[in-house]
Parts: sequence; structure tokens; C-alpha cells
Amino acid sequence: MELIYYIDLLGTMVFAISGAMAANRYGIDIFGATFMGFVTAIGGGSLRDVFLNIRPVWVEDGNYLIAIFVGVFISILFNKQLDSFARTLFLFDALGIGFFTVVGVEKSLAYESSAIAAVMLGMFSACMGGVIRDVLMNVTPLILRKEIYASACLAGAITYVLLTFIPLDPNLNAFISASVVFGIRFLSVRYNLSLPTVRPIN
Amino acid sequence: MELIYYIDLLGTMVFAISGAMAANRYGIDIFGATFMGFVTAIGGGSLRDVFLNIRPVWVEDGNYLIAIFVGVFISILFNKQLDSFARTLFLFDALGIGFFTVVGVEKSLAYESSAIAAVMLGMFSACMGGVIRDVLMNVTPLILRKEIYASACLAGAITYVLLTFIPLDPNLNAFISASVVFGIRFLSVRYNLSLPTVRPIN
Amino acid sequence: MELIYYIDLLGTMVFAISGAMAANRYGIDIFGATFMGFVTAIGGGSLRDVFLNIRPVWVEDGNYLIAIFVGVFISILFNKQLDSFARTLFLFDALGIGFFTVVGVEKSLAYESSAIAAVMLGMFSACMGGVIRDVLMNVTPLILRKEIYASACLAGAITYVLLTFIPLDPNLNAFISASVVFGIRFLSVRYNLSLPTVRPIN
Repeated sequence: MELIYYIDLLGTMVFAISGAMAANRYGIDIFGATFMGFVTAIGGGSLRDVFLNIRPVWVEDGNYLIAIFVGVFISILFNKQLDSFARTLFLFDALGIGFFTVVGVEKSLAYESSAIAAVMLGMFSACMGGVIRDVLMNVTPLILRKEIYASACLAGAITYVLLTFIPLDPNLNAFISASVVFGIRFLSVRYNLSLPTVRPIN
Repeated sequence: MELIYYIDLLGTMVFAISGAMAANRYGIDIFGATFMGFVTAIGGGSLRDVFLNIRPVWVEDGNYLIAIFVGVFISILFNKQLDSFARTLFLFDALGIGFFTVVGVEKSLAYESSAIAAVMLGMFSACMGGVIRDVLMNVTPLILRKEIYASACLAGAITYVLLTFIPLDPNLNAFISASVVFGIRFLSVRYNLSLPTVRPIN
Repeated sequence: MELIYYIDLLGTMVFAISGAMAANRYGIDIFGATFMGFVTAIGGGSLRDVFLNIRPVWVEDGNYLIAIFVGVFISILFNKQLDSFARTLFLFDALGIGFFTVVGVEKSLAYESSAIAAVMLGMFSACMGGVIRDVLMNVTPLILRKEIYASACLAGAITYVLLTFIPLDPNLNAFISASVVFGIRFLSVRYNLSLPTVRPIN
């Protein structure tokens, strides 16, 4: 349980770095970078909690906000070096979305959402922070572009929900489902895969 | 009551088709189309419920999500044919926003919002899904452009609230108010009407 | 207490004017102007309340919506004159964000958020309405551009929270903290100050 908590804080920090880096790339000031780090990190989980009609965890537990400020600080301090760590950050992000997807599904089920809603909310937890980040930066959200990102989360969330119907240790289920997210994300970037479109842009 | 429930599911499906079609038009992949169908269909009602501080209906009742997936599936399968059904879809949409407006006002009043807030929330129920869809697609929301869309919903919502002050069967009120929305929407497109602007674009 | 209530209504009206004026500037119709006035005025406070898991005040108290409609009406009626009152409006806005920041922090603390979350939520109360306005108008939010706006609110929110740790009359604290917001905002525009960016746009 303790371990999950620290992983959650770590994941929050990684998301904050990603949001702040996006802001830095656009020449936004340090306040804007902090703001973007914040919304990217808490956006997905907060939206899930709002739909579950519970209070987002960061409202009462200040450690999440501290984790975000540390993330933003890192992104400012090591701004130049972070680019050369792009591959490492990609791996962290892929691990992060796997973790957040599983936590999101678990929390939704714990608060008595339907199984199918838990799938959507799990995917939301991992992806909506990035969507809000992109909307604020006035670019079309990444998940609506070619890359396989949210669909990896969706696959992992479906896996988790399906495995709850067989007698399986929840921790093992969490591990398998997070691995599905990570695996699909990793392989899709490695082999440059994408989903089909219904109608190609002319 | 049963009938209302099925109309609600049908309306949700029609909204999902509209969201997914918008995504298809931009050459977005099938996951993106599903995502857009989802946010378009649940956006307005969810926002209303979040402001009423209750849980959106789709979080517990999986049928709404199934209706959305059916809608997305239809939009992908009959992608080419849907364009030639544009007129039919327009009529469905006009009926849909009339229905959703009335349901939104009724629900808000049932959860003890003020009459004036019920008007806004009724309009939100019908229109905000489309607003979120447009924001995600990075275009200026339709309701901020020339067409009479949200104002039709607003007129219907005002009608419903005003008619609650006279002794009238709620079903008759719902029918009249939804007809106001449909009628204004239909006539404004038929005769190419628009509201005045305060200051014309140069 | 009475006074605070009327200041709150006045602040809401000023924010509605600012939102409606933005819409007028883009040649949006009178419905769109009303809609923009509404979201600008209630956006920040509503988001704070949603995160606190309570119902936004305008849902039950119709006076807030009336204040908004009055604001929109003023912006339409005095559309041409408002431009020549730009300086007055700027001062009103600077006072408004100071007031909303302090009210936001107080309300968050009253609903048992952590001190650090109260700072974020105070800043949100004052700034997120404008962010939503800008996102809907499809422009990069003001607070992500060069001006010192949200950072002034942040400074005021931090001041308020810090001063709660010493024995000080809450009203005096509110006055000091709102003055910090106003002062920073005023001076930054007067002397054209801005925060450093991490990486300049090439």
C-alpha cells in the first residue's frame, strides 16, 4: 500500500515534468510552466474523481502538489539535459500511463462504477491530463493524432476488467494490465504502428 | 418512464454518431473517433450533473456507453452513406437537442437548482457536448458561430420553466418546450436566419 | 457579510462584461456573447467548487446569473463606450481578481482543503474563467502568455495562507492579500514587467 502511494507520487511528478517541458518548448514563462505541469499531472485523475463525485486526492493531500512542484523545478533546472533524456522520459511515461490506468480502473470499481465505465475512467485517468495540456496549448490533442497512446490505456483497462471475472490476485492483475499498456505503447512507437482511420485526409 | 429511458439512449447514440463523424472527417483514427463520440454524447449531461453535484448517469448505467459504442460503430460502418443522410441526421439532431434540453431542465429542477440555473443547465445538457467536441478538434465552437443552435435550446428551456408556473401537465410542457427547440432550430436553418452581432468583423 | 455578498455579485458582473466584450470583439452574436460572459464569470469559482465536491453557488442562488445578464447587457449596450473605459475596466479587473483569489482561498480552507491546495484553488477561482474563455475563443490562454496575471493571484493566495499562521484578523489578512494581487498586477502592467521564460522562442 505504502509502495503504491509513492509510485503514485512519482507518476504525478513525471506527468508534471512532461507538462512543464511542453510549456518550456513554447517559450512560456515559469509560472505558465508550473501551471501546465499542474494541469497535466492532476487533470486525468481529477476528471475521474469528479465523475465519481468524490474529491480529488490532491485537494486534501498536499504531497501531490509538492511532487508536482518538484517535477516542474526539475524541468526548469535540467531543461537542456531533459531533451537528451527523451528516451528515458518516454519509458517513464509509458510506465506511468500503465500505472495510472490500472489505479484509475481500481478506484472506479471501488466506488461502484459499472465495469464498462471503469474502463473509460481508467483510460481517462492516464490520458486526460495530456488532453487538457494540449487543449490549453491550443494544439490538437495527441490522442486524436496518429500515435497509439490512449488506445494502449484502453486495452490495459479492458484487460484489467476482464481479469476481475476470473479468480486472480488483484496485484497480479494490476501487473499484467499495466504491462499490456506499456507493451502496446512501447511496441507501437518502436515499430511505428498506428490504428486505421475511417477516411484519410485528402 | 420506460419510453423516456429509451429515447435518452437513442439521443445519446445520435450524439455519438455526430461526434464520431466529426472525427472521421478530420482523418482521425478509429480510437479517436470512439473518444470523440464518447465526449460529444456524454459531455453536456455530465457537466450538468457535475454542477448539480451528482454522479453522471453513465458512470453507473453501462447501457449509455453501449449506446455510444453502437453509435460509433454505425458511424464507421456507414461512414460513406451517412453523408447522404445528412438531412435525416440534421432532423435527428434537432429532435435530440429538444429532448436533451427538456430532460436537463427537469433534472436540474428535480435536484433543486434555481429556475434560472435550470434554464442554463438545460441548455448546457444539449449543447456542451458539441462545444467540447469542437474545442478538442481545435475549432471555434459551433455555438459561437453564426448558426442558431444553443439559442434554440435556451428558448425551449425558458419556455419549460415559464410553463411550470401555470397548472399544466409536465408531459405536455415537455412536448411544447421540445417543439420550441426543434421549431426554432428547423426554421433558422430552413430560412438561414441568424442572431445580430454587436460588432461586425471588419 | 452582506457587503462581501454584494462585492461577489459585482465581481461576477465585471467578469461577465470582460467575457462578453471578448466575444463582441470577434463578431460573435448576442447569444454567444451571453454564453461567453457566463462561462468567464462562473468558470473559475465553479471549477474550485467542483474540486471541493460542493455545488457552485450560482446553481442555487439565481442572483449570480442575474448579475451576469446585467453585465452582458451592459457590454452590449455600451459596447462602443467600453473601449474608452479600458483603463477603468483594467482597474476593476485587477480589483476583481484580488477579491476572487481571497474568497477562493477562504472557501477552500473552510471546506478543509490542504493549505497548499487552497493556494492553487484560490488562484483557480480568479483565473480559470478567463482560461476557459480563451480556450473557447480558440486562442492560447492569456495566463500562458507574457503578462503577469495568474502569478499575481498566486502571490496573493500564498500571502493569505502564510498570514493564517500568525494571529491576525481574517479581514485584515483578506485586505492585505487582495492588495498584493492588485499591487503586483497593477505594477507589472504599469512597468511592463514579465516573468522569465525557461527557453526563448527562436
